[in-house]
Amino acid sequence: MAGSKFAYVRNFELPDPLLPGTFMVLRLDGHAFHRLSAEHDFVKPNDERALQLMDHAARDVMNEFKDIVLAFGESDEYSFLFRRSSNVYNRRQAKILTTVASLFTSSYVYHWQQYLPNTRLKYPPSFDARLVLYPSAKEVRDYFAWRQADTHINNLYNTIFWALVLQGGETTTQAHETLKGTVSKDKHEMLFSRFSINYNLLPARFRKGSILVREPIPSETEAHADPGMVLPDVSAVEPEKKPRVKTTVVLVHCDIIGDEFWAAREYLLAD
Amino acid sequence: MAGSKFAYVRNFELPDPLLPGTFMVLRLDGHAFHRLSAEHDFVKPNDERALQLMDHAARDVMNEFKDIVLAFGESDEYSFLFRRSSNVYNRRQAKILTTVASLFTSSYVYHWQQYLPNTRLKYPPSFDARLVLYPSAKEVRDYFAWRQADTHINNLYNTIFWALVLQGGETTTQAHETLKGTVSKDKHEMLFSRFSINYNLLPARFRKGSILVREPIPSETEAHADPGMVLPDVSAVEPEKKPRVKTTVVLVHCDIIGDEFWAAREYLLAD
Amino acid sequence: MAGSKFAYVRNFELPDPLLPGTFMVLRLDGHAFHRLSAEHDFVKPNDERALQLMDHAARDVMNEFKDIVLAFGESDEYSFLFRRSSNVYNRRQAKILTTVASLFTSSYVYHWQQYLPNTRLKYPPSFDARLVLYPSAKEVRDYFAWRQADTHINNLYNTIFWALVLQGGETTTQAHETLKGTVSKDKHEMLFSRFSINYNLLPARFRKGSILVREPIPSETEAHADPGMVLPDVSAVEPEKKPRVKTTVVLVHCDIIGDEFWAAREYLLAD
Amino acid sequence: MAGSKFAYVRNFELPDPLLPGTFMVLRLDGHAFHRLSAEHDFVKPNDERALQLMDHAARDVMNEFKDIVLAFGESDEYSFLFRRSSNVYNRRQAKILTTVASLFTSSYVYHWQQYLPNTRLKYPPSFDARLVLYPSAKEVRDYFAWRQADTHINNLYNTIFWALVLQGGETTTQAHETLKGTVSKDKHEMLFSRFSINYNLLPARFRKGSILVREPIPSETEAHADPGMVLPDVSAVEPEKKPRVKTTVVLVHCDIIGDEFWAAREYLLAD
Repeated sequence: MAGSKFAYVRNFELPDPLLPGTFMVLRLDGHAFHRLSAEHDFVKPNDERALQLMDHAARDVMNEFKDIVLAFGESDEYSFLFRRSSNVYNRRQAKILTTVASLFTSSYVYHWQQYLPNTRLKYPPSFDARLVLYPSAKEVRDYFAWRQADTHINNLYNTIFWALVLQGGETTTQAHETLKGTVSKDKHEMLFSRFSINYNLLPARFRKGSILVREPIPSETEAHADPGMVLPDVSAVEPEKKPRVKTTVVLVHCDIIGDEFWAAREYLLAD
Repeated sequence: MAGSKFAYVRNFELPDPLLPGTFMVLRLDGHAFHRLSAEHDFVKPNDERALQLMDHAARDVMNEFKDIVLAFGESDEYSFLFRRSSNVYNRRQAKILTTVASLFTSSYVYHWQQYLPNTRLKYPPSFDARLVLYPSAKEVRDYFAWRQADTHINNLYNTIFWALVLQGGETTTQAHETLKGTVSKDKHEMLFSRFSINYNLLPARFRKGSILVREPIPSETEAHADPGMVLPDVSAVEPEKKPRVKTTVVLVHCDIIGDEFWAAREYLLAD
Repeated sequence: MAGSKFAYVRNFELPDPLLPGTFMVLRLDGHAFHRLSAEHDFVKPNDERALQLMDHAARDVMNEFKDIVLAFGESDEYSFLFRRSSNVYNRRQAKILTTVASLFTSSYVYHWQQYLPNTRLKYPPSFDARLVLYPSAKEVRDYFAWRQADTHINNLYNTIFWALVLQGGETTTQAHETLKGTVSKDKHEMLFSRFSINYNLLPARFRKGSILVREPIPSETEAHADPGMVLPDVSAVEPEKKPRVKTTVVLVHCDIIGDEFWAAREYLLAD
Repeated sequence: MAGSKFAYVRNFELPDPLLPGTFMVLRLDGHAFHRLSAEHDFVKPNDERALQLMDHAARDVMNEFKDIVLAFGESDEYSFLFRRSSNVYNRRQAKILTTVASLFTSSYVYHWQQYLPNTRLKYPPSFDARLVLYPSAKEVRDYFAWRQADTHINNLYNTIFWALVLQGGETTTQAHETLKGTVSKDKHEMLFSRFSINYNLLPARFRKGSILVREPIPSETEAHADPGMVLPDVSAVEPEKKPRVKTTVVLVHCDIIGDEFWAAREYLLAD
């Protein structure tokens, strides 16, 4: 074979398997999205269309990767949780990272027009990604709590900041100055007293972020569902042959810091 | 801070720096491009429009990453060479891999319409990527020789294969059978005697692949060029302050297995 | 500084931290111990003196590394379990691996004379080591069960094998032949019927291996103990300041496959 | 098999191959050798016996690992260079690191008595080790230059420091104070004017460190040599079958910062 004398270069490709038995969390971040949102006139403080586009791209990723059981999105970032026992691509790190980052990006560009029909995409946007391993369920819950707490903090700040600018007539510099040293309670009050905004009545999407969760489908509706998740089945008679449960991906905007969300979905962290 | 009690989860993010002083080669591969080319009626054996789209996406990557000095593309894959001393993103592996894979994909989807104006893209295509380190110039040359030899082998096979099918009326199964056991010389002769095709006169793009090479621009034309490459400058009086040379990315379809290409561009492997 | 222009070579030292929140298990194996045991006339099938020397070296390691809570030894190998939250050497892999391997080896050579007073050590013996991460308590238990099951299998085989050779007059080749295809029950019976050996009455050290376990010392005897383990303390009023409990390292030769051992020492896998 | 249901724990052992085509440099460092030298009354500023013991242990390592072509020792540290194409243990990092660290330590303890016959070793000493990859010959040379420059700086300081203490009657605190701010030239002069010591006439071992270099043996003396190094043989008629050259390990105390040492031994960095 003509190429065989060069094929030794493949020996430099080193294996990169991720530790089994751990939860993989992959987080995507928009690259230079300050510029992207400025150049495409994203609505401030939140552009619902752009957030929906992110959700769409994330859903496309989950439809392709059945081992992703949960995703959380806010602003220009999205985190994906693979179930603990996932053996996707034999847990090869670069393969997983790049395929997810590529597919998400592809879907984002592909569906742009659908969500922002009157805004031409001026140039190709991109994302980076990292993959973190968590050994236990506790750390996974704390990871998602960390991201949702971040959503809350950022959104509260941005909401009052842009109210000061867009409704209050302050410059962005003045608005930063106005908010310096304020705590959460101050911001709530300022929003209400100066702008008649009750923060807690704002759309849950902005306050809580987007949660895409894979849920099993009762068997009578199976026909319409994606095949997917292997649910841990304690009562199974044949432990070797777990029934492959039809699943669907549901979008919610609820609290994931407390116990309720997780208690209702123990399978997320079970296996 | 509300999120601070969860912030410990960041401790699970481990560093992933790549060994300094080595050449990074990043190779992208299309994910399920057999299906993509079938569903979008790519011309066989080569669809020039689809190849030009790949080249465009690769060029966008090189315009963003000035440390990439060379790229080689064939079919649905593209390889990028970073100069040896590159410190892009502090040589963090996941960051480099995902940003390049994402940007390439983004550009591919973004420019699809421009190259295949009459073919609606039916779904978001994706790529995976891997990154390999090569310690010396010899291995880098052999890597690119390996890919170009592969281009030659595949293209010769595909050219005669599709001639047998499209012009010779064979089924794909028959064509595979016809070619079983043939060597390169047989294929050349079969192409010429049965289909009057002189393989060596086929477009160089198909036979040699696409080479995107970063080249310095003579100073009088600097104004139109991208700033970029730091060329090794042996004669520089101040060794600490190398002049930043304006560069441009040139597309060629030439031999890169022999010495000529490299001898004319010693800077590619110098630094 | 004279050396400063060379100091850049330190940049090639890459970080190698191990994932937090996982159990580190470090396993040492004797290098070429077939030869070592042959050249120093180790008693067959088990040389108690050599096993005690291994135990001594392992204990020295545990006295130095307070985060090791359990060790298991058989033949020429020893496994060490670090508590899950250990931050020894900031979890740097090479540092942990080499320091433990070096100290164990050093102690082995240092104390040789004490355990084999009439056998001069003919040359320096060595060990290799590997480090494996386990995310959960279940896997840690299964790891130690795997090693103890291995001890059982090997020891049963070696016991009957050497009985055939030393008492039965078979050559080693004949003995291997005699044992081919026999299962556990056959070996037990052969031992009893031909050599009047009741396997279950053989020393527990040979049948179960050596378990070194770190145990807390009741406070009245604290003065004689090594300070060490930080025990998880559910009732602590000040969660930030766990009392440092005095511990001691105890040698036992008991079953660690079943639940009893672990149920009596929940702290081993707690933290 | 009794243990088979636990054997899955082996899946957590991940591969750790080192990049091919790079020079591996392994550096050992004494663990807490300040205490070791104090408790065993090492001669100040240099204890020739202890240094010879280090050299002996390093030589034992080189006799075992034929791919180590060079070693450099000073004080309580030793660096080993593997030839670039070494495939020892399939370049598995943990295996190489721990075996070398263990063997060095073993030899150190084993031969202690021989070099310090009147000093009983009070406890088992230990070493740690790290492994660094260098892509090119230049970096390897600079690595060894870095260590030898360090030897010079430390030894000059220690020589005058201990002269001030042992001959000059200063306390260690006073001696540090006396030397504060002095440059190399000052120290040379102080040594000569106050203690009549011509630094350049001190033993080369102290000033230059210990270099153990693998050298080929002319064929007529082959019988007495260790088989070892595969020398790159440009004139070989059969390139696939390089003659295995007998080698020996030679101890020298010469300059390795300049070109002379390396120019006389091009094979060290050739392959």
